Amino acid sequence: MQRQAFDWRQAGRRVVLVPTMGALHDGHRSLINLARKKVKKGGVVVVSIYVNPAQFNDPQDLENYPRTLSSDKKICREESVDIVFAPNNLYKKEESVEVKENSLTTRLEGVHRPGHFAGVMTVVAKLFNLVLPDFSVFGEKDFQQVAVIRRMVRDLNYPVSILVGPTLREENGLAMSSRNVLLTNDHRDQAAVLSRAIEFSRQSIGSRSSDLKRKLRRLIEKQPDAQVDYIEFVDTISLSPVTKVKKGSRILLAVKIGSVRLIDNGLL
Amino acid sequence: MQRQAFDWRQAGRRVVLVPTMGALHDGHRSLINLARKKVKKGGVVVVSIYVNPAQFNDPQDLENYPRTLSSDKKICREESVDIVFAPNNLYKKEESVEVKENSLTTRLEGVHRPGHFAGVMTVVAKLFNLVLPDFSVFGEKDFQQVAVIRRMVRDLNYPVSILVGPTLREENGLAMSSRNVLLTNDHRDQAAVLSRAIEFSRQSIGSRSSDLKRKLRRLIEKQPDAQVDYIEFVDTISLSPVTKVKKGSRILLAVKIGSVRLIDNGLL
Repeated sequence: MQRQAFDWRQAGRRVVLVPTMGALHDGHRSLINLARKKVKKGGVVVVSIYVNPAQFNDPQDLENYPRTLSSDKKICREESVDIVFAPNNLYKKEESVEVKENSLTTRLEGVHRPGHFAGVMTVVAKLFNLVLPDFSVFGEKDFQQVAVIRRMVRDLNYPVSILVGPTLREENGLAMSSRNVLLTNDHRDQAAVLSRAIEFSRQSIGSRSSDLKRKLRRLIEKQPDAQVDYIEFVDTISLSPVTKVKKGSRILLAVKIGSVRLIDNGLL
Repeated sequence: MQRQAFDWRQAGRRVVLVPTMGALHDGHRSLINLARKKVKKGGVVVVSIYVNPAQFNDPQDLENYPRTLSSDKKICREESVDIVFAPNNLYKKEESVEVKENSLTTRLEGVHRPGHFAGVMTVVAKLFNLVLPDFSVFGEKDFQQVAVIRRMVRDLNYPVSILVGPTLREENGLAMSSRNVLLTNDHRDQAAVLSRAIEFSRQSIGSRSSDLKRKLRRLIEKQPDAQVDYIEFVDTISLSPVTKVKKGSRILLAVKIGSVRLIDNGLL
């Protein structure tokens, strides 16, 4: 991969990387389209597919994560991806180096999934060094992840521009996610409550965050198998909590529907 | 710097980086020569000069560290260095990302200088991303640092080959180091005991490490202002301690001479 990347560089071809864990869906297609638009003809779109063990804090989640390489490849072909980079393993036996962040990752997913972001940053650092992209595309659904990756790029001076694609949603409002295939039909219906919660908070500008969080928790947990992991209103840049729900702040939430943990977010 | 680096890449010029903290001496000259030999004509030799605050655990040591930019530049000119990269500052206000290692750095300098190697790795990661070198040259005097940097390159897949230049020594055996200018003449004489200790251990193959360490500590601390920080015999690859001093193992030691902390090492 790296040799290929050097050849592209020397040929002056622009490279854009779309890092994924596979189980590609329409959300990924839209990220790939964004990538293609950025480099146009002559540029190279690389989709990496790698279920990164280091970012799973829950071994059961890692085991259950959908793996659908042959249909992923088909989707990449349909979307005119130039290279699918699907390594079997990106770790050596005695791996001992990791990239850490100690500010943005102390909240939200960072609290609820210990080690998750170090795993994400480390694998993205590896991928950047292997693919040497000019651009890399991430989905806004993982909003905190985007902030953390941007911070890594800034602080370590990676020569990569980060592009962010919007969250795509099912008809019932459920944010597209590879984990959605793990939901039963009933749970898929219940999961629509996350986007309803976002909508509800858009109509509650001016509320105190603590009040609105309580309301939303009640709204969400009316679903028989829904359990809130967190609901937070934050400044959209610093990710620090806001006490009052303002226009321009953002809601981030994580909810378990049965055994499947889903996250979502929205700008208010 | 990064824009310049991209131009070199696209022109197919090989780039070699010699990261330094300035106060250049003949040891650095030899590293620069090694760099030049590697890329020959058409290649680019970059010397970075940056006293990296993040790798100093002792604020006094940071304050005292010699800063001699104009004579450093003169040396670089004499050695036909192409670019001196001497940034004022490589850190943003709210820097929150760092590169860490959790195996090789749990010993020796890692124990005696908490945070030191994270500081080194983080700044080297930044420099690699700014200069985009094909090769980077480090001095063997900082033996553990070389091992840690190699590990970082391996684990994060940096597309950089690490070259190591041998330790140069003063006539009295003292390993060349930027910190040597901080020694009084008397202390410079006393400091020669480090290399004598290495020599002594070369003549003690087959000893038990613990016995030889005791002997060397006595030998060193006969000097009126010498205080041993550590003496260790290690496997030259894993840096793990060996119980018996064998040919092919390595001695690493750190000794304070007055207020100046010196390190040295040697293959047995």
